[in-house]
Amino acid sequence: MSDSLTHLNAQGEANMVDVTDKAVTQRQATAQGYIKMSADTLAMITEGKHKKGDVFAVARIAGIQAAKKCGDLIPLCHPLMLTKVQVDFTPEPEHNRVKVTSLCKLSGQTGVEMEALTAVSVACLTLFDMCKAVDPNMVIEGIAVTTKSGGKSGHWERTQSC
Amino acid sequence: MSDSLTHLNAQGEANMVDVTDKAVTQRQATAQGYIKMSADTLAMITEGKHKKGDVFAVARIAGIQAAKKCGDLIPLCHPLMLTKVQVDFTPEPEHNRVKVTSLCKLSGQTGVEMEALTAVSVACLTLFDMCKAVDPNMVIEGIAVTTKSGGKSGHWERTQSC
Amino acid sequence: MSDSLTHLNAQGEANMVDVTDKAVTQRQATAQGYIKMSADTLAMITEGKHKKGDVFAVARIAGIQAAKKCGDLIPLCHPLMLTKVQVDFTPEPEHNRVKVTSLCKLSGQTGVEMEALTAVSVACLTLFDMCKAVDPNMVIEGIAVTTKSGGKSGHWERTQSC
Amino acid sequence: MSDSLTHLNAQGEANMVDVTDKAVTQRQATAQGYIKMSADTLAMITEGKHKKGDVFAVARIAGIQAAKKCGDLIPLCHPLMLTKVQVDFTPEPEHNRVKVTSLCKLSGQTGVEMEALTAVSVACLTLFDMCKAVDPNMVIEGIAVTTKSGGKSGHWERTQSC
Amino acid sequence: MSDSLTHLNAQGEANMVDVTDKAVTQRQATAQGYIKMSADTLAMITEGKHKKGDVFAVARIAGIQAAKKCGDLIPLCHPLMLTKVQVDFTPEPEHNRVKVTSLCKLSGQTGVEMEALTAVSVACLTLFDMCKAVDPNMVIEGIAVTTKSGGKSGHWERTQSC
Amino acid sequence: MSDSLTHLNAQGEANMVDVTDKAVTQRQATAQGYIKMSADTLAMITEGKHKKGDVFAVARIAGIQAAKKCGDLIPLCHPLMLTKVQVDFTPEPEHNRVKVTSLCKLSGQTGVEMEALTAVSVACLTLFDMCKAVDPNMVIEGIAVTTKSGGKSGHWERTQSC
Repeated sequence: MSDSLTHLNAQGEANMVDVTDKAVTQRQATAQGYIKMSADTLAMITEGKHKKGDVFAVARIAGIQAAKKCGDLIPLCHPLMLTKVQVDFTPEPEHNRVKVTSLCKLSGQTGVEMEALTAVSVACLTLFDMCKAVDPNMVIEGIAVTTKSGGKSGHWERTQSC
Repeated sequence: MSDSLTHLNAQGEANMVDVTDKAVTQRQATAQGYIKMSADTLAMITEGKHKKGDVFAVARIAGIQAAKKCGDLIPLCHPLMLTKVQVDFTPEPEHNRVKVTSLCKLSGQTGVEMEALTAVSVACLTLFDMCKAVDPNMVIEGIAVTTKSGGKSGHWERTQSC
Repeated sequence: MSDSLTHLNAQGEANMVDVTDKAVTQRQATAQGYIKMSADTLAMITEGKHKKGDVFAVARIAGIQAAKKCGDLIPLCHPLMLTKVQVDFTPEPEHNRVKVTSLCKLSGQTGVEMEALTAVSVACLTLFDMCKAVDPNMVIEGIAVTTKSGGKSGHWERTQSC
Repeated sequence: MSDSLTHLNAQGEANMVDVTDKAVTQRQATAQGYIKMSADTLAMITEGKHKKGDVFAVARIAGIQAAKKCGDLIPLCHPLMLTKVQVDFTPEPEHNRVKVTSLCKLSGQTGVEMEALTAVSVACLTLFDMCKAVDPNMVIEGIAVTTKSGGKSGHWERTQSC
Repeated sequence: MSDSLTHLNAQGEANMVDVTDKAVTQRQATAQGYIKMSADTLAMITEGKHKKGDVFAVARIAGIQAAKKCGDLIPLCHPLMLTKVQVDFTPEPEHNRVKVTSLCKLSGQTGVEMEALTAVSVACLTLFDMCKAVDPNMVIEGIAVTTKSGGKSGHWERTQSC
Repeated sequence: MSDSLTHLNAQGEANMVDVTDKAVTQRQATAQGYIKMSADTLAMITEGKHKKGDVFAVARIAGIQAAKKCGDLIPLCHPLMLTKVQVDFTPEPEHNRVKVTSLCKLSGQTGVEMEALTAVSVACLTLFDMCKAVDPNMVIEGIAVTTKSGGKSGHWERTQSC
């Protein structure tokens, strides 16, 4: 862990970190997040008439597309050529929420945790969009990196709860 | 509040809601969210050598830009011509977190809460990006709409905590 | 019908047509197209194990998103604020093809037939992408405007077959 | 040829195919398509006053730009770094149409036929846009991959007519 | 003329200016710029074998497309629906340069001079790109607003030379 | 130096240059430009109340983001995966201007001077946007490549003044 912010120079000016000399290795990251909603809203997208509907398909595509746009959304992220993006949804009725997880991979010079986090965030926002007319009180929470591997720092796994 | 999902038809197929006949009114929404980090990381961006640095400026710009891209990120959002986007940051050292708030406005046919939520989400992701080398355990949480006005449904204000 | 190309001046130079003084009216366009595939491929996406899968949902979202990007894809198209985009799929096993239709609407100063055509084209390309590993011989065909209304030229309806 | 759709898992959920372990090889694809128009419209863009105009130049640029945007347009396409894109036009007055062909190349882990198809499609749409005021009945047809090489599956060439 | 920067608040924080309450009026702006090159390079694109080539057509399209992307490129610009964009080129062999001019129009709540400047800048960059292999010493210069009208401040015309 | 334009074929048709067979080498380019403004405007962003404000931070981010979008802005540029982008500002009160410099790097098959030039151009445009309400007469000038290295042509350094 470095003791200063990698994107800022001594004058506090933010620039894109130089990764030109970093090795090309296989890199992978997973992230997760939750969208909390009322029991009724959750039932609406997981049971009955909307059960087989497009809700999760739309949010999955939005998350995948967003991972590819990460370098455009996050100003100091490098443009990357992801070789794999996956977004999954697990309704957790016991917690009145949907768990969203993502996996990103590439062979490259820098990690893909921002891509994984972006996929989760935008998938959550898309679920919010489709349910907001019935439940404006939803909350997106617990967006965090869960694992990360590849590169000099090797394998990292979240140990704190979120 | 409607009793079914506005974006889905009877077959569960998702399409963009028709707002052609809705009135053009002034609409406004605010949203908020938090990024939780270690006390050390928070100190690093709010005190001492990085205090006057670009950290919040970069995240603010990322949030504003993301609000403008909302129709491209969220598949069923309408393209909108925002007339105002504002993103603010309040360090909350007592909670080891930064509070992020946003305000979006337009004269248009549909609400701007997704734009406000997107601004907060991407501002949080950008703070994550700049601090991740020192603190990979950060968590983004509590992303929610706080107020909304304009349009047929009038003024709405969040009453539940998040 | 004009007797010269509206986007070109006397020197043959292409520029965006000036619509500043055109009235804001409700405009609407529909378009259609087909993707022809083998009977086996068509069966794969409409019956059996993939039947309830995401195939059409993904293509629908791609078409809707593309309609919103039309002004970015087609150099001389005006940026527009679509108020409605809809994309539908009708498998036609008797012709070994899927019919793709779209509907776009807005209140604005110029027509939306390019948006409708772009939605159909990209929806077809997305179906091609998902099926190409099993059927590289697919053909996209019959992409055409079917109706158009609003603006000075009023209602127009395709009379020729395609 | 695989016997199931590569982008869908057993639950029918669509995700980006994992190409992380595929070899980097030189890959190339060509595609073609047609835009059918009236004899008058075709004459307008190939003879007389518009002959030396920008019509084909604009459509060529649109096609090239679209090939670069393919990963953004087609949800499950990987982002790719194309090393060559070429788009050509051949007026075919005997068939009242313009033939559009494209060639895409890269050194990478996945094929470029979607990029070649996207270039052809958007070039056709751009011709449609510039001619639509004089000929709204145009039809885009016969969009197909013609050849493909590189990668595990080696050289492939279309044998069916389109 | 205001006596402080409109985009910054008292804390020096940059946000998008609020134009929600500004009147919708017809607005227009023109801008210009130059790309200086060697006499040989200029001759290459204006005479002989490349004379009827696509060079200016490509740069014109790039400029028009860039005007439409202005809100995405310039962080605090509002998204706008341009109703007209025009880009023109005048070779000035007596000065070894090409003059690039642009015109942007819309009915809206804020001016379009940034769109006009962006069109000129990107058209110049595109000419640079096409000529750089023969003339890496080119210089882009004199990019400025020439006229501006519409809105509260009325008609403005550049009086200083550039 | 080639004796004809690399992007045009014998018919004057512009296409993306084929770099498929070029070696992957470390490439780097620097560029510079200036924005000339009144002494008062320059003082406003470098002294007194706006001194510690976001002005340069916003322009820096805009320049970095634009470098990443270069392949989308300049029609015949290849998409590239930049490994480093840096943008710096030097107020030059003796010349009533701000000097903007950029540095871009990548390991790739083609040079990055267009990315460096685009970063400088858009950073200048962003400064223009933030200062235009107080000083509409600003001029952007002297945008040029200063050094370039990597690839077959090796190191190149500007010798002419600009």
